[in-house]
Formats: sequence, C-alpha cells, structure tokens
Amino acid sequence: MKEWIALNMTPGVGPRAAAKLLERFGSAEAVFNATRAELEALRLRPEAVESIRARDLFEKAVDEINRVRELGADLLLLDDGVYPALLREIFDPPVTLYLKGAWEECLSAPCVAVVGSRRSSTYGQNAAQMLARDLAQRGVTIISGLARGIDAAAHRGALEAGGRTVAVMGTGLDEVYPRDHRKLAQEILAAGGALISEFPLGTPPAPQNFPYRNRVISGLSLGVLVVEAAENSGSLITARLALEQGREVWAVPGNITSRNSFGTNYLIKGAGAKLVQQWQDVVEELPQEVAARLLPPETKKKEEGGPSRQMPLAPTDLSASERAVFNLLTADEAVHIDELAAQSKLSMPELTGALLGLEIRELVRQLPGKCFVRKM
Amino acid sequence: MKEWIALNMTPGVGPRAAAKLLERFGSAEAVFNATRAELEALRLRPEAVESIRARDLFEKAVDEINRVRELGADLLLLDDGVYPALLREIFDPPVTLYLKGAWEECLSAPCVAVVGSRRSSTYGQNAAQMLARDLAQRGVTIISGLARGIDAAAHRGALEAGGRTVAVMGTGLDEVYPRDHRKLAQEILAAGGALISEFPLGTPPAPQNFPYRNRVISGLSLGVLVVEAAENSGSLITARLALEQGREVWAVPGNITSRNSFGTNYLIKGAGAKLVQQWQDVVEELPQEVAARLLPPETKKKEEGGPSRQMPLAPTDLSASERAVFNLLTADEAVHIDELAAQSKLSMPELTGALLGLEIRELVRQLPGKCFVRKM
Repeated sequence: MKEWIALNMTPGVGPRAAAKLLERFGSAEAVFNATRAELEALRLRPEAVESIRARDLFEKAVDEINRVRELGADLLLLDDGVYPALLREIFDPPVTLYLKGAWEECLSAPCVAVVGSRRSSTYGQNAAQMLARDLAQRGVTIISGLARGIDAAAHRGALEAGGRTVAVMGTGLDEVYPRDHRKLAQEILAAGGALISEFPLGTPPAPQNFPYRNRVISGLSLGVLVVEAAENSGSLITARLALEQGREVWAVPGNITSRNSFGTNYLIKGAGAKLVQQWQDVVEELPQEVAARLLPPETKKKEEGGPSRQMPLAPTDLSASERAVFNLLTADEAVHIDELAAQSKLSMPELTGALLGLEIRELVRQLPGKCFVRKM
Repeated sequence: MKEWIALNMTPGVGPRAAAKLLERFGSAEAVFNATRAELEALRLRPEAVESIRARDLFEKAVDEINRVRELGADLLLLDDGVYPALLREIFDPPVTLYLKGAWEECLSAPCVAVVGSRRSSTYGQNAAQMLARDLAQRGVTIISGLARGIDAAAHRGALEAGGRTVAVMGTGLDEVYPRDHRKLAQEILAAGGALISEFPLGTPPAPQNFPYRNRVISGLSLGVLVVEAAENSGSLITARLALEQGREVWAVPGNITSRNSFGTNYLIKGAGAKLVQQWQDVVEELPQEVAARLLPPETKKKEEGGPSRQMPLAPTDLSASERAVFNLLTADEAVHIDELAAQSKLSMPELTGALLGLEIRELVRQLPGKCFVRKM
C-alpha cells in the first residue's frame, strides 16, 4: 500500500498520469522499479521522475497510513475489490481514496449528487434542501461537495430527513473547507454519512483541486442534480463531466430574470438536462429496478370479478384524441408511449397533447420510462 | 354572406357543428335549404334545427353586416381567399371572423402567441412584456387574448416596441372584456394592430366561449409561448390545443416554489415544450426561412487569403472530446450535430457535453436546427 500512497503524493502526478503509469507498469510497486528512461518516455514532469526514482516519499507514505488509522479513516486503492464501482468506471478515477464514516453503507444505496452555486439565492437553498430531504427520506444517498450555498443545503436536507449523505472534499480529510463547515462535517459523520477525498492528509484548499473533486462527485453518482448555477459556474462543469461520464443530469428551473438560474435553465434548454420540480422527477430517470424500489407502490390490483374491476368510462368532455388514448389505457398495466402511438394512430404531437390533457385532468399518470396508466 | 352570418349566430351551432353542416351541404346557402330530416340526421340540437328551418336569423344577419360596416370592421368567411391560412388548417376553424384594424399586415408577418395566467406574478408579467417586446421589435406579431395578467403584458410589450399585436377576443368585437382594457384595445388598433373575434357583435363574456377563443389564439400562430400557468389553468389547455394543431409550444420556466410556474415547468418537463430564456429561443424553433430572416446576420466572411482566414487554434485547456469537436467546426459553415457525432465518433452524451463545454467558454455557437459554428 505504501507505494500507492507514495504515488498519489508524488508532485506532478495527477490521476491521469497515475493511470498512465499503472497501465504501463502494472502496479504501484513496479512504477517505483522503473528506470529513468522508462519514466521519461511517459513524458512525466521532471520533478515526478526525480521523486519516483529517489523513493523519497516512502517514509512519508508510511506516516500517512498511520495517521489515517489514527483518524479512524480508511484508505482504498484503485485495485481494491471494494473500490466504488461507479467511480472506477470513469476515465480518470482517483488512484487512492481517503474515506471516513459509513462509506460502504452510503455507497451501496443509490447515490445522487446535488450541487450548485456557492453564491446561491434563498430560493436555491430551499429547493436544494427540500429535494435532498425528499430523496434521502426514500433511501437515496445525497452526494455533494461540502461547499457553501447549495452544497451545504443539500447535505442539511439529507440530515433533516435522517438520511445518508457523503461530502466529497477538495482538501485533505482532516482539512475541512470552508472551516465553518467543520460542524456540518461532524453532523454528516454522526448521522451515518461519510467524508471522501482523494487528496493526502493536510492538503489545503487550492483552486486547481476543486475540478478534480467535481469529477468524483459525479463519478460516485448515478446522476447530478444542479440546483442553481450562474453562467460559467463550476456546477456547469460538473454537469458537463457527468454527461461525459454517461451519468444523468437533472436541473431545477428558476426565474429567467435570476442570474443564479441562468445555468440550470440553460442545461434544460441546451444540454438535455431533465427538469426537476419534485423528487419523483429524479427517481423516474434512475435505472428501472432502482426507481421501482423507491417510487410508491402501485395501487394493489382489485379483486377479480368485483364491480371495481370494471373499466371506468371516459368522462364526456374529452377530445376525440384524448378519448382514444384513454380507452387504450388501464389502471393495471403501464403502456409505453410508442405502443400508444402505434395503437392510436395519432401523430406524436397529437398523442403528447392528448396525454397532457389527460394528465392535467388527473385521469392518467406517467410512470418511469414514458409509460402511462390510468389513475384509479 | 348573410347565410354564413346567420349560421354563425344560430343557437346550438358551434364551430364543430358548423363544419359538419358545411361538409354535408357544401355551402351556408345549402344548409338553409336542407330538409328537417337531413338536419336531424346530423344530430343537431333541436333549437338549431328550428332556427335553420325558420330562417329567423336572416334579418338579424343583415343588421349585423351593417353594424360591422359602421364599426369599420371586416367580416371573413371560411371560404374567403384571405381567410388566415394557418387558422384554416385547424380541425375546427371559425366559420366567420370579425376583424378590426390592420389584420392583414399583422397576420402576414410571423405570428407567435404569448399567453398565461390572469392571476400572474410580477415576474411573469415582466417576462411576458420583455419577451413580447423583443419579438415584436424583430417583426413578429404577438397574438394574445386581451385578458388580465400575462395577456395584457404581452400586448403592452409589443406596443412598447412599436410592433404589431393582435387581440383575439372571447366576446363580440364591440364588447371589450375586461372593460378596463378598452384603452388597451384602442392602443392596439392605433399602433397598427388588430382585434379578432368569431363571436357575433354584442356577445357578452361567457365562460364557455373562452376555450373557443383559445383555439383561435393558437390557430393563428406558428406556436404558443406560455409565460406563467398554474396547475389546471386555461393556458395549459391552450398549450394542449397548440400541440394538437401541430404548432410549437414554448414555456418560460420559473421557480419550482411558485404556483404560477407549476404549469410552465410541467410543460417543459412532460410535454416537450421548449424552454425559453430569451427571444432567440422562440425564433430558433420557427420554420428555418422565418428564423433566418429574424436572427442577426452571421458575421460576414473574412477576405480570402488574409491572416484572419487562418483557423484559430484550439485553446489549450480543452478536454480531449472538446478539442476533437472544436477541430471539426469552422466559423464559416454550420455543422449539424449528427454529422459531428459521425465524424467525432463520440457518443451523444459525450458530444453534448463537449458542445456544452465549448458553448460555456463562448467558443462555439448553436444555430437553429441543432447546427453549430465556431464563434469568431
């Protein structure tokens, strides 16, 4: 393990260089047995080559491992079996992870990142707290960045629900930033949450580390919910990373006159982010088996043969297309929109219009994956 | 003409019954020559059959035509060559239209409806006025319903820009509702706008007439922009009608905590409405030849051979996928997203992510129809 930790502490070796080294040499041990020429051929920075050749971080790495134990924290290496599976899938996963708290329980639940501007509005903070609370209450782990504004509101929403939340830090595990969030970090741990960082202990807040932190936030999550983001904000970059990682992106809309909602509205308009009004909008886009577990159970099937078994008739004020669609639906079985299109022979705009009309009248309900059922 | 007017005034003959009569008998004259049995076979309401057989509205129809002339208004019949072409396309176009003002000029420009709640917020009114003003300034005719709240703000925005606006009324042309909008109606006419109604003169405000009015608002327009709408609001019905008519639907997002934005957020989330932050978002969805006329002209091509002809290099901080996409783009020619996908071999989420990253850095610009160019 000390070789991995030393590699992660080596100046000039970020996650991409580390990945390159491990790919070339097969293990952290082998990296430290490489010749100067072999290392230089990979175009490492000169100080990295020097440090690896000199093995001057081994002693510091042993110290680091002891300090992690004293902190009651854990260390994971990229080739550990328990390394978070979703995070390992990304292009440049951290070589080592420092983790504190109930990280295994947190990461074995469905994880959703809730992020946004540090300089957020009251509206944004309320929305973040409400959505995080409602998701955490259903067993979703809320991942965020422990920053001011939206991040803090997201963690607090999860805590309010008695749920789990994970703070991914851009500093060392022992260096909470901002410092007035130390109490929040303690509360997260006390509530069965976790703190995670890829940076060595004692790493101070440095602007260049936060983008790395952001890729871990999205990398640990099934998707990222952006609550507020101004133009050119870091949260838009997190959304971009999530898209590149093939993860879902959701966004909370806001008034077009608010600077803080420019970015989230833009994500919905131009980048295919799903608009979120309430927690169900997030859950409906999760993998089907996860969504099915989290969404309220369907009304139980009525006893066969009883009068309630009969199909209710369509209300009389429906348009022709609404009536056609209504008559194709039952309360027992969800029908996919493509099947409705095929059976109703309606064009997609007509069909969408009819379904909207039926939803507005609360006659039908949309389920995950563009499926529809009658409401009972 | 008097037969058409009489038919339109006949109790129990709405636009759908009128369409059925005209389809069956070929002309308004022929309807009045039909036998009782023929009329009853169409399942008309008894009072309609009585009135048509008695021809008791002919005299009133002649009076009506004279009163329309005295008002300086116009009457159009469904089979007139100048009947608005877009409106004629809908399932149940009005049999007659009463029009006052410069309606021909108004309707020959691209028309966009701007509608929303009567009980709107200050935010909604500001957004409606701003968007209507910006669109009207570029030559778009703003169609709305002369109601309180969003409708009035939309008309006022168009007037503020010195642009054209059309009020579609749910009452007779001579019965402005609400009454304190009489000054607004005058201002619309004075500014080269128009008033339009399908209802006979003197028709008072009746709740059942406003849904008919709504289908004319969307029917006259290339699309409908909904600015604010609560759950179960009439504006959602207008949006549904627009979808059924095959017209565009746009919506302005708003805070998820605002009742007034529930419907617009819902339209974006669940009904495929395009999210609108600014006037360009509307224009980009108009037919390409209309959009090209309204959008600011592209930067003129630089002189061939000069140094500015050279392709600028990609900035050094791009990700691999951003760089790949950037290098496929030029400032001279728009490339469709499908072509970018084919050439870059990126997955659609990666490509969308890369384009978003480039747009955030203002390196590329999106054009109508999912086409992209470099910014100069």
